[in-house]
Amino acid sequence: VNETAATSLVDAVRSGDRGALARLLSVVEAGGEEARAALAELPVTAGDATWTIGITGAPGAGKSTLTAALVRHLRAKGVRVGVLAVDPTSPFTGGAILGDRVRMHDHTTDPDVFIRSMATRGHPGGLARAVPQAIRVLAAAGHDVVVVETVGVGQVEVGIAGTADTTVVVVNPGWGDGVQAAKAGLLEIGDVFVINKADRDGVSATVRDLEAMLALAGERAWVPPVLPTVATRDEGVDDLVDAVERHRAAAEASGELTERRERRIADEIRGLVLDRCIKQADDLVSGTRFATVVRQVADGVSDPYTAATLLVEGADGGAA
Amino acid sequence: VNETAATSLVDAVRSGDRGALARLLSVVEAGGEEARAALAELPVTAGDATWTIGITGAPGAGKSTLTAALVRHLRAKGVRVGVLAVDPTSPFTGGAILGDRVRMHDHTTDPDVFIRSMATRGHPGGLARAVPQAIRVLAAAGHDVVVVETVGVGQVEVGIAGTADTTVVVVNPGWGDGVQAAKAGLLEIGDVFVINKADRDGVSATVRDLEAMLALAGERAWVPPVLPTVATRDEGVDDLVDAVERHRAAAEASGELTERRERRIADEIRGLVLDRCIKQADDLVSGTRFATVVRQVADGVSDPYTAATLLVEGADGGAA
Repeated sequence: VNETAATSLVDAVRSGDRGALARLLSVVEAGGEEARAALAELPVTAGDATWTIGITGAPGAGKSTLTAALVRHLRAKGVRVGVLAVDPTSPFTGGAILGDRVRMHDHTTDPDVFIRSMATRGHPGGLARAVPQAIRVLAAAGHDVVVVETVGVGQVEVGIAGTADTTVVVVNPGWGDGVQAAKAGLLEIGDVFVINKADRDGVSATVRDLEAMLALAGERAWVPPVLPTVATRDEGVDDLVDAVERHRAAAEASGELTERRERRIADEIRGLVLDRCIKQADDLVSGTRFATVVRQVADGVSDPYTAATLLVEGADGGAA
Repeated sequence: VNETAATSLVDAVRSGDRGALARLLSVVEAGGEEARAALAELPVTAGDATWTIGITGAPGAGKSTLTAALVRHLRAKGVRVGVLAVDPTSPFTGGAILGDRVRMHDHTTDPDVFIRSMATRGHPGGLARAVPQAIRVLAAAGHDVVVVETVGVGQVEVGIAGTADTTVVVVNPGWGDGVQAAKAGLLEIGDVFVINKADRDGVSATVRDLEAMLALAGERAWVPPVLPTVATRDEGVDDLVDAVERHRAAAEASGELTERRERRIADEIRGLVLDRCIKQADDLVSGTRFATVVRQVADGVSDPYTAATLLVEGADGGAA
């Protein structure tokens, strides 16, 4: 029954049903058996024709405004666009992110744009697994481009942006912004650098800083361009679209694309394995068996290490 | 050889060697085989004569200043005190915490006070495991009281404070501070509530708020007192020491103490199990076997779920 339900949900998504798409994304986000059944219908090659653009940078750099402008320019060319906005797990930034979402409002009535916030607040494995899967779902729904916006803080979020087909790193003008990006590990992952809010002072110094730091990486087939934009006034966004298209052509020609997509698959499998191992740990430390073992340690009959070994290895024996 | 080394390190700690104590705490924090060998010498009952006091609350509530004042009062009574300051993993608060540490400075030359920052920045399992183990080590070194200071944000940190023998929750005067504490899950875990910075306005309203919220929990054998303090001027700290001693007597009489100590043992075992399961996941997603599986999925020969199952169950089969 579950398999039939999954098949019909995936079919509805393929036929352009937006309600089905929203439901399938929720299923994938939640994980578990239902996600497994649905994704069995979507081979990893399902998204091969879809281009993913990662947009990342420090909080406040203007990523959401830039994403909205980019979507507008792509729509003007007739491109169907899906947006995945990955909320950080932090309760401190959740509110601000939610506010940013409002700026996407002008796209919400366009049937060829689909915007989704991913609020995977579980462990890091959940996000590593769910993002590549959601990209596949959006591709199956016929989106030509999927934009994945993540905050450029934290290994998991930076990693997700870095496995996009083209990664755009957003900084602002001003002394030290380039250095901050370097510290956050953003220099290594950027294919295109955008200096947003370029109506402020210090743009040329930031361009110089970034280009100097990027030059340290040595000779490379693709030299990441550094582009000033003012996303709120739609300035420089055409140049960004051009740069993404040039990078796409270069990545397809060099074999870099194949490598990126394998890294995304590796992330997904890594997330699935971590999911299962953490679930296993959760199962081992609940129930009466755990209570018995804890009591034995409390009574001095056993010690914590022996107890942990007993729980982990006892469970293996039981499963075999 | 390892066991002999562990035995002599534990013996040195028992004989009062502070250098050995610092080394053993590092060993325990790092985990692994060396920690296991050392802790085999320290049964969970080793700390039974030592009283642990958890101090928790929002960042900026004055926890470190209060801890320093509490240590001073306990020292005046001839009590030997160990302090575990659990750094949050957040890079945003790391700096402020480090600054707070400086206020502990007046105790650093006292041979009967030992202060340790725990910077376990790994996964939650690491902290859940390491804190009960470090308490045992400080107990073995002859400390009568161990104060565990954690920030009252995040499930793991709040959980650690909540499994102390006596948990002190620190808030500040002002509208809404009690509500914030309730939201963070601090009302349930507090045995003693301190309104620190009580030279500011709003103390009586905060006392009233807290007492009203605590009354909602219904009849209880121990009713948590709400005490105003000004830690920077040493005001109210004697009352705090009295309250902790009264709670200790009540917890010993009611059997609550046994329950708390079992919860601490459960936390430690849970942390050890999570450690092992995450280590297992890390091993599974590295090496040539993982690379082969990723390639199979990329080539369309397999899918991510089948690959994850193969990795997890293949490994079980190999171990059995």
